Amino acid sequence: MISIDAMGGDHGPSVVIPAVAQALSALPPNVRVLLHGDEAVLAPEIARLPALAARTELRHAERVIGNDEKPAQALRRSKGTSMWNAVEAVREGRATAALSAGNTGALMAISKLLLRMSADLERPALVASLPNPRGFTTFLDVGANVDCDAERLIEFAIMGEAFHRAAHGVARPTVGLLNVGSEEMKGHEEVREAHRILREGGLSLNYKGFVEGDDLTGGAVDVVVTDGFTGNVALKAMEGAARFMKAELKTALTANLTGTIGAALARPSLRRFSERLSPPPAAPLLGLNGMVLKCHGGAGVTDYAHAVRVAVDLARSDFSGEIEENMRRLPSAMAEQGQRPAEGGV
Amino acid sequence: MISIDAMGGDHGPSVVIPAVAQALSALPPNVRVLLHGDEAVLAPEIARLPALAARTELRHAERVIGNDEKPAQALRRSKGTSMWNAVEAVREGRATAALSAGNTGALMAISKLLLRMSADLERPALVASLPNPRGFTTFLDVGANVDCDAERLIEFAIMGEAFHRAAHGVARPTVGLLNVGSEEMKGHEEVREAHRILREGGLSLNYKGFVEGDDLTGGAVDVVVTDGFTGNVALKAMEGAARFMKAELKTALTANLTGTIGAALARPSLRRFSERLSPPPAAPLLGLNGMVLKCHGGAGVTDYAHAVRVAVDLARSDFSGEIEENMRRLPSAMAEQGQRPAEGGV
Repeated sequence: MISIDAMGGDHGPSVVIPAVAQALSALPPNVRVLLHGDEAVLAPEIARLPALAARTELRHAERVIGNDEKPAQALRRSKGTSMWNAVEAVREGRATAALSAGNTGALMAISKLLLRMSADLERPALVASLPNPRGFTTFLDVGANVDCDAERLIEFAIMGEAFHRAAHGVARPTVGLLNVGSEEMKGHEEVREAHRILREGGLSLNYKGFVEGDDLTGGAVDVVVTDGFTGNVALKAMEGAARFMKAELKTALTANLTGTIGAALARPSLRRFSERLSPPPAAPLLGLNGMVLKCHGGAGVTDYAHAVRVAVDLARSDFSGEIEENMRRLPSAMAEQGQRPAEGGV
Repeated sequence: MISIDAMGGDHGPSVVIPAVAQALSALPPNVRVLLHGDEAVLAPEIARLPALAARTELRHAERVIGNDEKPAQALRRSKGTSMWNAVEAVREGRATAALSAGNTGALMAISKLLLRMSADLERPALVASLPNPRGFTTFLDVGANVDCDAERLIEFAIMGEAFHRAAHGVARPTVGLLNVGSEEMKGHEEVREAHRILREGGLSLNYKGFVEGDDLTGGAVDVVVTDGFTGNVALKAMEGAARFMKAELKTALTANLTGTIGAALARPSLRRFSERLSPPPAAPLLGLNGMVLKCHGGAGVTDYAHAVRVAVDLARSDFSGEIEENMRRLPSAMAEQGQRPAEGGV
């Protein structure tokens, strides 16, 4: 059972209902959904789609959290909203994953409050999947934690590695730390300290050292770790660059007749290219006792349906056990590192 | 006269010599170059190109700075290297700009030592030009300063604005501060403090507030300011994304016959598209008493020739006067801000 905030996102039920119907039609018949939101709006929509209605449970929610509400403010009045109820269903064990396209900060705060952090983790991380020539790069944190010390970065490495294994079936994912160069003395203190601990602290990670911005889509490592400020900026910069390139390509291909004919012939290829580069529709919040996914606020029906399928896939896997195993090693790794003299450094 | 480190970069003279010849052939006959490097290598190469030889002065340099040398170490033994001599020619007034594709950190250190900072600026910033639908985005710092406080970010805004006006002829360039959201309470302390000062401090800047990663190629503002860590990662992430997209596009277009025919017809359009997205070949170091440009280490002949033309263009403009004017306003702007109670905050 997947628990869905049917009111979240820029378009609300007008996207969510047809998207859920589309996703379910391609999923095994035992997959069911729990929809949260305004019954007066949702019930008639669901009734019009019998195939959806047969696999849906509707739970009325009085209120919706606004996209622009500040997290702390939203949290205070969040009980009984469609988002709160969607996450609560995971806590109560009635659903294996929750999905919302609503306010990111509020979703983090509600999830942390209701589900609590797994093991000794401090804060959830938002993870993105980027295409690379070999498959996908797991990239975190992409915006949940603006200020990060070395310990946060190491937590991200642990969570990201376990997530990558669960999501992509790679036995020993490689991990890299994002920096401005590959040399030991580069980067700021937090990054260099995290590097020392990851390299020597005895965590069970396949750590490969520093990577740079172009390695995100280059596929140098499976998991790239950074703070939420850098991660959010880099992710959006790449999304913007992809959008800009698609627009430029369209302009270039329609500038003259032969180009236009060529583009028409190449249309199916160009469409596959475009799909391959679409931003990931759903970003899981890692580190919680339960699965919560954030769908992009502006997602259309196709993207939202994809997000539902991702939620179902991830709900089947289990990576919290692996996260806990590595977290148990963390305190001794940090202590060992503390006893050693700092190396290198500028 | 442009002063060129002929030994710098991954390829050295084998790229620099033909590139300079190519650039000069498209520039007014009064533009001349001063080439620095090993006479035994350079003299025969120059002699083979009479059109180049007629407009070139060769100055022998004993040594070359290695690409992997640490800046502090490189600086100690830098006197008399081709890079040192290239910058020294600007200080001595014999050249209007220096260009090198060598070690970035060493180039910064040598430039700061020989030319000194302009006005009361603390450190040089490395600036990149990104394409956007309206023209170009000036983006800084892209790697010269890893740790930045609010004052550094404000200096970047001042330098970037003056640079954009000089380089692109925009009378009142708009300026934005890179952040993870547009709301006042978002981002870390340094960014929020710089935002308060830029908004209220009485600097003569057309400041528009926070921008996000996708605004870099979206064209929301003319100048985007960030710290050197975030800027370097974002720039390389976009370069990597562009490279990945080009490779994927090629794969998609050659996957089947109609796609291949279509791509062949559209080839000139695709080439224009690719050129439009090429990374900027030369990044000026801003804030110095003199013009120094860093060319990408891996630049080929076409890119390096482009970099020479950029150097000539920029050497004609004068933006240090404007930087100094705004810098004189900075101390009072900082003081005014200090007297006010901090607003907003988390």
